[in-house]
Amino acid sequence: MVDPSDLSPEQLTVASLGQAQHKSPLRKSLYPGDGLGDFVADDMRMLYEPRFRQGEPLSQLSFERAGAREKLFFDPGKTKVAIVTCGGLCPGINNVIRSLVLELTFNYGVQNVWGFRYGFQGLNPEQSRLPMALTPKVVEDIHHRGGTILGTSRGHQSPEVMAHCLADQGFDILFCIGGDGTQHGAHSIASEIARRELPISVVGIPKTIDNDIRFCFRTFGYYTAVAEAETVVDRAHVEAKSILNGVGLVKLMGREAGFIAAAAALASGEANFVLVPEVDFPLEGENGFLAKLQHRLATREHAVVVVAEGAGQDWMPSRTKEHDASGNRRLADVGPFLKQKIQESCAAASLPVKVKYFDPSYHIRSVPATAADSLLCERLARNAVHAAMAGKTDMLIGLWHNHFIHVPLAISTGAKKQLSPEGELWQAVLALTGQ
Amino acid sequence: MVDPSDLSPEQLTVASLGQAQHKSPLRKSLYPGDGLGDFVADDMRMLYEPRFRQGEPLSQLSFERAGAREKLFFDPGKTKVAIVTCGGLCPGINNVIRSLVLELTFNYGVQNVWGFRYGFQGLNPEQSRLPMALTPKVVEDIHHRGGTILGTSRGHQSPEVMAHCLADQGFDILFCIGGDGTQHGAHSIASEIARRELPISVVGIPKTIDNDIRFCFRTFGYYTAVAEAETVVDRAHVEAKSILNGVGLVKLMGREAGFIAAAAALASGEANFVLVPEVDFPLEGENGFLAKLQHRLATREHAVVVVAEGAGQDWMPSRTKEHDASGNRRLADVGPFLKQKIQESCAAASLPVKVKYFDPSYHIRSVPATAADSLLCERLARNAVHAAMAGKTDMLIGLWHNHFIHVPLAISTGAKKQLSPEGELWQAVLALTGQ
Amino acid sequence: MVDPSDLSPEQLTVASLGQAQHKSPLRKSLYPGDGLGDFVADDMRMLYEPRFRQGEPLSQLSFERAGAREKLFFDPGKTKVAIVTCGGLCPGINNVIRSLVLELTFNYGVQNVWGFRYGFQGLNPEQSRLPMALTPKVVEDIHHRGGTILGTSRGHQSPEVMAHCLADQGFDILFCIGGDGTQHGAHSIASEIARRELPISVVGIPKTIDNDIRFCFRTFGYYTAVAEAETVVDRAHVEAKSILNGVGLVKLMGREAGFIAAAAALASGEANFVLVPEVDFPLEGENGFLAKLQHRLATREHAVVVVAEGAGQDWMPSRTKEHDASGNRRLADVGPFLKQKIQESCAAASLPVKVKYFDPSYHIRSVPATAADSLLCERLARNAVHAAMAGKTDMLIGLWHNHFIHVPLAISTGAKKQLSPEGELWQAVLALTGQ
Amino acid sequence: MVDPSDLSPEQLTVASLGQAQHKSPLRKSLYPGDGLGDFVADDMRMLYEPRFRQGEPLSQLSFERAGAREKLFFDPGKTKVAIVTCGGLCPGINNVIRSLVLELTFNYGVQNVWGFRYGFQGLNPEQSRLPMALTPKVVEDIHHRGGTILGTSRGHQSPEVMAHCLADQGFDILFCIGGDGTQHGAHSIASEIARRELPISVVGIPKTIDNDIRFCFRTFGYYTAVAEAETVVDRAHVEAKSILNGVGLVKLMGREAGFIAAAAALASGEANFVLVPEVDFPLEGENGFLAKLQHRLATREHAVVVVAEGAGQDWMPSRTKEHDASGNRRLADVGPFLKQKIQESCAAASLPVKVKYFDPSYHIRSVPATAADSLLCERLARNAVHAAMAGKTDMLIGLWHNHFIHVPLAISTGAKKQLSPEGELWQAVLALTGQ
Repeated sequence: MVDPSDLSPEQLTVASLGQAQHKSPLRKSLYPGDGLGDFVADDMRMLYEPRFRQGEPLSQLSFERAGAREKLFFDPGKTKVAIVTCGGLCPGINNVIRSLVLELTFNYGVQNVWGFRYGFQGLNPEQSRLPMALTPKVVEDIHHRGGTILGTSRGHQSPEVMAHCLADQGFDILFCIGGDGTQHGAHSIASEIARRELPISVVGIPKTIDNDIRFCFRTFGYYTAVAEAETVVDRAHVEAKSILNGVGLVKLMGREAGFIAAAAALASGEANFVLVPEVDFPLEGENGFLAKLQHRLATREHAVVVVAEGAGQDWMPSRTKEHDASGNRRLADVGPFLKQKIQESCAAASLPVKVKYFDPSYHIRSVPATAADSLLCERLARNAVHAAMAGKTDMLIGLWHNHFIHVPLAISTGAKKQLSPEGELWQAVLALTGQ
Repeated sequence: MVDPSDLSPEQLTVASLGQAQHKSPLRKSLYPGDGLGDFVADDMRMLYEPRFRQGEPLSQLSFERAGAREKLFFDPGKTKVAIVTCGGLCPGINNVIRSLVLELTFNYGVQNVWGFRYGFQGLNPEQSRLPMALTPKVVEDIHHRGGTILGTSRGHQSPEVMAHCLADQGFDILFCIGGDGTQHGAHSIASEIARRELPISVVGIPKTIDNDIRFCFRTFGYYTAVAEAETVVDRAHVEAKSILNGVGLVKLMGREAGFIAAAAALASGEANFVLVPEVDFPLEGENGFLAKLQHRLATREHAVVVVAEGAGQDWMPSRTKEHDASGNRRLADVGPFLKQKIQESCAAASLPVKVKYFDPSYHIRSVPATAADSLLCERLARNAVHAAMAGKTDMLIGLWHNHFIHVPLAISTGAKKQLSPEGELWQAVLALTGQ
Repeated sequence: MVDPSDLSPEQLTVASLGQAQHKSPLRKSLYPGDGLGDFVADDMRMLYEPRFRQGEPLSQLSFERAGAREKLFFDPGKTKVAIVTCGGLCPGINNVIRSLVLELTFNYGVQNVWGFRYGFQGLNPEQSRLPMALTPKVVEDIHHRGGTILGTSRGHQSPEVMAHCLADQGFDILFCIGGDGTQHGAHSIASEIARRELPISVVGIPKTIDNDIRFCFRTFGYYTAVAEAETVVDRAHVEAKSILNGVGLVKLMGREAGFIAAAAALASGEANFVLVPEVDFPLEGENGFLAKLQHRLATREHAVVVVAEGAGQDWMPSRTKEHDASGNRRLADVGPFLKQKIQESCAAASLPVKVKYFDPSYHIRSVPATAADSLLCERLARNAVHAAMAGKTDMLIGLWHNHFIHVPLAISTGAKKQLSPEGELWQAVLALTGQ
Repeated sequence: MVDPSDLSPEQLTVASLGQAQHKSPLRKSLYPGDGLGDFVADDMRMLYEPRFRQGEPLSQLSFERAGAREKLFFDPGKTKVAIVTCGGLCPGINNVIRSLVLELTFNYGVQNVWGFRYGFQGLNPEQSRLPMALTPKVVEDIHHRGGTILGTSRGHQSPEVMAHCLADQGFDILFCIGGDGTQHGAHSIASEIARRELPISVVGIPKTIDNDIRFCFRTFGYYTAVAEAETVVDRAHVEAKSILNGVGLVKLMGREAGFIAAAAALASGEANFVLVPEVDFPLEGENGFLAKLQHRLATREHAVVVVAEGAGQDWMPSRTKEHDASGNRRLADVGPFLKQKIQESCAAASLPVKVKYFDPSYHIRSVPATAADSLLCERLARNAVHAAMAGKTDMLIGLWHNHFIHVPLAISTGAKKQLSPEGELWQAVLALTGQ
C-alpha cells in the first residue's frame, strides 16, 4: 500500500492534450435523475483513503474520476486509433480489444481502428508485421478465446522510433494494454510525444495477472487466474491425500506479489502452507518451513504447499542478477528447489515422503476470461476510450473503491503493488493455514 | 443507491451486548508495521461516500469497520454458537458455514458449534429436526459442494419462539445466513432478545444471489451466478444463430433487481436486448420492444433477449397480489409471456420466427461457488465471527469500498438495492446493446 | 436391437456409382505390417453379431467396412462437394464439417467444397441463401464452437428440386449431416439421382443427440449431451436435498429412446427414478410411480426423478396427433404434467412436497463437443470422405463393434434404435435406482 | 493388437473356485423377451475377431462373456469382501469403489465390505493401516471426487503375506483395481491362493489412464484424461499463436502407449506434431523432427508439439535402466530434452523461437471422471461383482466390442496394449497433422 503522505496532489494530476471542443456523441447528460447516464466532469474526484478514525480529519488526497466527458478533444469521424498488447498472456486481453473497438465504432463513430502486431515491436517499422484493421466484424467472437489476436512480445523499443511511427502514420490515440514494463514504455512514448508537442493521446490499460499494478484494486485476469489456480491446489490436495505422506507442491505465478498464491489457497481451502515474496519464512531451523512440514506430515500424513514463484529467493544460492526482455529480474526456480529440499530433509528424518509437483503457469494464463473478469474488461475498455477521446494522456485507467479513475503513468509505474502482511488477505491465509 | 441524506449517524450505530472484557486469543496487535495483523478499534470508520466534487465538502457519514476486536464479549471456551441458513440456494453457503466453523474452532477456540436444520423452522421446536454438531471434520469438504448442508426453508416463524429456543438451549450467538427476509427475521429475533435483555448476539451474513441487499457492494454467489448465466446467454446465442430468424430468449433471476441479467449480458457480449425491473421498456408501439426486435431480425436475422424475472410485470394482466412463504411478491412469469408475444407479433408481421426459450434458474443457484465468491465467503464469515465474539448484535456484515463493515439490521432490510439506470453497469449494457 | 433374421445380405449391400478408376492420393498400402495405413477392400466385412453360444453356429450376416479405398470413383482435382446440416443442434456438427473439409482439401486435394445454408432449404433455390465456400481457413476454429456454421432447418423439400439443384450446380458429392428424417431425405435425393442416372454420391453422417439411429452404436454428441445432462441431475440432487421433501424433477431429451436419461442418471449416480419411452411405468396405483415416490419421500425425505421427454405419453389425455416440420410426432409435455401430478398426489396424502423442475434441452445441445465426441466426429467425417470419393452412395457411416461401417440408407432409416429393457444399460439403471 | 494365432482357447478359459450352488438374488431371468434382464450362461461367448474377408472363414477364438450368473458360488449373507486400489491415480477409481459397494450391498445383500488402505501395503499387516468399512453411506458422494478414498501405493508385496492376510481375516473376495503391475500382483495372489486351495476369489478391475491393458478396448479414466489433455493442447496453441515463432510443447502421459497423446491431439485439432512411443521419428536430419518443425515455423510462424512421455527415448543418452516401485522402467524426461533441442537447433538456424512447455501430468489424473467414464466405471464394477459372486477368479473384466468379458489374468498382464501405427487412430493423427 502506498502511503498517502508520499503523494502530492500535483502527482495525481492527469495530463491533457488541450482544450476539448467537440461535443460528445454519447447520449448522456450532466444531470442525475433524468434517466440518462451522466457525463463526468474533470473536477469529480475519488478520495484516496475513505477509512478514518472518528474525530481525526480525512486526507483530501484524491484521484480524477474516469467516465465519459461532455466535450471531446478529438473529432471522432477523423480520429485514427491504435491498440497494442505487450508482455505475457492474461485472460481478458481479447475482451478489452473487443470492447475498445465496439465503443469506438458504435458509440463514438470512430472508423479507423488498428492493431499493432506483436507488442511494441509492431511500432518499430524495422521489425514489424503490418498492423491489422480492427472492425466490429473482426472482433465479434474474440472474447471467447484466450490469448491476444494482436500477438504480443516482450522487450524495449526506442520511444523515439515508436513516437515517430505513430506520428508518421497519422495516429491520434494509442491504447497500451500491458503490465508495469509496458506502462513504463507507454510513459516513455507519451514523454517523447510531449517533447515533440504532438496531439497524440497515450492511454494505458493495466494488464497484470499478478494483480500488482498500483492504484488498481483488481486487474483483469486476476480472478480468472485464481479460479484456475484454485483447481490446481484442489488437485494437489487429491494427489497428496491419495498416498501416505503425500505432499502436493504447487508453484503459482507471482514474481513480486503473492496475490494469486494467497487467493488460490484461500479459495481452495486446502492449502496448509503458503509462501509469498512479501513475507519471509525461514526454510531451515526449528520454526522453519521444513520442520513445520515434517510436523504436519507426522500428524496428518499429507500436506499441500503453495509457493509463489517469487518467494524464497533468499534460500537459493543461484539467485541471479539477470533480467528478461521485459526488464523483469530473472528468478531462481523455487519449485524444484523446494521439492528437493523437502525430499532431502524428510529422508534425513527417515520420513518417507512423496512430493507431487505442479507448475501450471502457461496453463493458467491462456484461458478465456471468466465472467467477473469479462465484466471488468468491458468497463475498463470503455473508460479508456472516454479518457482518450477527451484528450487525456500519459495515464492509465485505475480501479479504486470500485470506481474507475485516471492515474498518471508517472506514479503508477516503477513500483508494484504488493500483498500487505498485515492486510486482510494475508491474515485470512494465516487464519486458514495456521502456518 | 441510498441517498446519504436519508441516513443519520445514529442509524449507522451498531448495537452491542455490553462491555467486552475477554482478551482475544488471536495473534494480532494494535500497531501497524509490526508484521502482525491489526485489531480494529470501534472508532475506525469507513466513509459512506468517497466521491466528491473539488471544492465541495465531504459528508462525514460513515460505517463502523469490521474486523477482529482486541477484547471479546464472549469467553470462547464457554461460548455456544448456532448457524442457520434460510431462503433459496445460493452458491457459497457451504463455504460460509465452513469458514465460520473453522474460525470459531481453530482460531477462537470455541468448542460448541451447532447448525439448525432447514431454516428458521429449525428454531421452532415443534417443527424441527435436531440441530447438527458442526466440527472441522464435518465441514472439511463441504465447500466444494453446492447447496447447504444444513438445509433451508422459506417462511416466517415466531420471534418469541425462536428467541426462547436460543435461550433455552443456551446459545450465545446466532449466525443467520440469508436474504432480505431472513435478515428481517434476524432483526425480529434480536429485538425480542433485547426485550428480554438476553446476552445473545445475532449476526447476519447477507445471502442474495440477486445482489440486492443494501450496503453490500457485492454479495456472495452473485459472480458465480453471473458466470453460469453467461454460459446460458452464450448458448442462446448459438441457438439463435443456427436458424433463420432465431431468437434466444433467456429468463434470469432478478425479482427486484436486474444485476444478474445486466452482468450476464455484458459478460457474454452476445445479448441484443436486456430487460430489467428497474428500467421501463414499452412492449408495443413504434419504439416498443417488439418493434425493435423485429427490426433487428429483419436486418441481422437473429437476436438474443435477456429478461430478468421481475421485468415487464406491467405488461401482464395477471399480475398477482400473492406472496410466497418468504413474503416475496409472486411474480407473473414474464418468460412464456414474452415468448408468446414475440411469436404473435412476428406472425402478424409475416416474419417467420423461432423462439428458443431458456429458463435456467435452479440450474444456476445450485452450483458450488467460483473462486471469486469462495474468497468473499471466507472473509465474510471470519468477519462475522469477529463481530459476534466482540458482542456486536442486530447487524450484518456489509461490504463497502472493498472493506467489510458493520450494518445495523434495521437499515439494511426492508428496501432492496437496485440497479441504477444512470449507473455504470446499466450504461455499459446500453453501450453494448444499443437497445 | 434389430433381429438379424430380419435382414438379408442383399439389404446390407451398399450402392455404388460405378467402377472406381482413379488412384487414391492417400499414402496408404494394401499390406499390413509395412508401417503404412491400410486401404480397405470392398470385401472386408464386419460381422453383425459376434456373440454366440458355444457349439452354435455364427450368423455370417455382415456389414461392409468403411475406410480409405485404393481406387476412387471421382478425380479429386475435378470434384465439387457440398455439405448440408439439418434438424436440431447437436454437439460436434462443426467438428464434422471441419474434418470433412480438412480431409477433402489436404489429403484428397479437392479444391471445391461448399456448404448449403440452413438445411435442405439451402438446396431449394427458391428459399435459399447462397452456399458458402468452405476452405481450411474458414473452418480453422469452428470445432471449438457449438451449433453449425452452416445453419440448419427442419422440414421436407422436394427430392426433385434438390437433385436438380445438385446436378445444375455441378456437384459430385453431397454429405448430409442429420438424423433419421434427414437421412430419409438423403435417401429420397439419392433415389431421385439414381432415377436420373446421375453420377452424384449422397453420403449420410448420422447426427442424433438421442443416440437413436440404427447400426450406429454411438452417435456424436451423445456423450457430450450425457455429460451436460449429468450436471443437471447432480444439481437437481442438490436442490432436492436442500429442503424437506424436495423433489428434483429433470426432463431430458429422448423422444423415442431413453438413452440420454438412462446414461445421465447412471453417470450422476443420484437419480432415484428414471422414466423412459421404452419401459412402461404405471403412474397411479399401489405400484405406480406416484406411490413409490411418496414412499421414498416418507423414508428418505428427498428424491430425484429423471424423465425422458417421450416417456409417459400414455398418461396424458392431450396426446396429440400432430407432427413438426421434421415429421416428428408432437409430444405432450410430460415435465409440467408430472410436476403437477406429484404436487397433487402429495397434497392428497398430506405430504408437503416441493418440486424443483429442470428443463435444460437447448442448454444441452448447443455446447461444443467434448473430447470423446470430437474424436468420433473426426473419424466419422474422414470415413465419409473415403466412402464418397470411392463412389459409394445412398448410405451412411455407421459404427459397429468400434469400427466404422457402410450402411444403406434404406435400412438405417424409418425405424429408430431404442434402449432394450433387458439390455445392460437399462439393467444398470434398475440396479442403481432399485425403482 | 494381439494376433489371435498367439492365443489358444485354453488360455482364454477362466478359472473358477468350484460349483456355484446358491441362487442369485437378482431379479433376472434366463429368457429374453420377458422384460427382465437376462442371466448370462458360462457358454455365452464373444468372438475375438468379428472382422473377416468375404469367403474366408472366421476364427472361433472367443472370450467368456461377463454378466450376472444364475447361480452363485458365495452365499451373499456370509460373504466378506475386500477392495484394494493400487498404482497411480486415474479418474473414476472412486466411482468403481462406489458401484462395487452399492451392487454388493443393495443388490446381492452382502453386508461385509472392506477397503484395504494404501494399495497392496494394506494387505501386509506389518505396514498397514486398518482397513476401512465400506457402506453405502460412506461411498454416497465419493464419485464426485478425484483420487481414491482408500489411498494407493506402488510396489511389490509378498503374495504369501497377502494371501495369508486375506485368509486370516476371513475374506472371500478381493477386488484389485489397478494397472498391469497390479494385475500381475493379483495373479500372484490368486496363484498362491490356488496353491493353498483356498476358496477366495480374486477379480481384477483394469485401471490404466494410458489405456494400455490388453483385451480392454477402453479403460476408465482414459476419456477423462483425453478431455483434460485436450484443454492443455488447446492452451498450448493459444500460447504458440500469441507470439512470433511460438512453439507450444506438451508432454502427456503414455509410457508405452501413445493413446492419450494421439487422442488429445485429434480432439483438439490444433497439434502439428505428435510423438508417441510406438512410432519412431528421427530427431535430426533432413526429414527429422527438428527440420520439419523449423520448416513449419518458417511458413506458419507457430507450432504445437505433443509428445508422449515414453516417446523419443532413443534420442536421449541418459536412458536409464532403473525401475520404479511398481516395476516400471524409469524414463528419461523427453520434455525438457526436446525443449532444449528445439531451442538449440533454432538458434543454430538463426530462427528466434520461444518454447512454452506444458507438463500437466498430475493435473490430469486427479480429476473426477467425466460422464462417459462414470458410465464405464459403473458397469465395470457391477460386472466384477457378478463374476466374483459366481466364483470366477484369477481374471479381470475386459471390454470387447462394447461388451464386457472375462479375461484370465495370465494373458492380460505382462504385455501392454499399444497404438497400431497402421490403425485408425494413428492414421487419423497423420491425416490431421500431415507430419
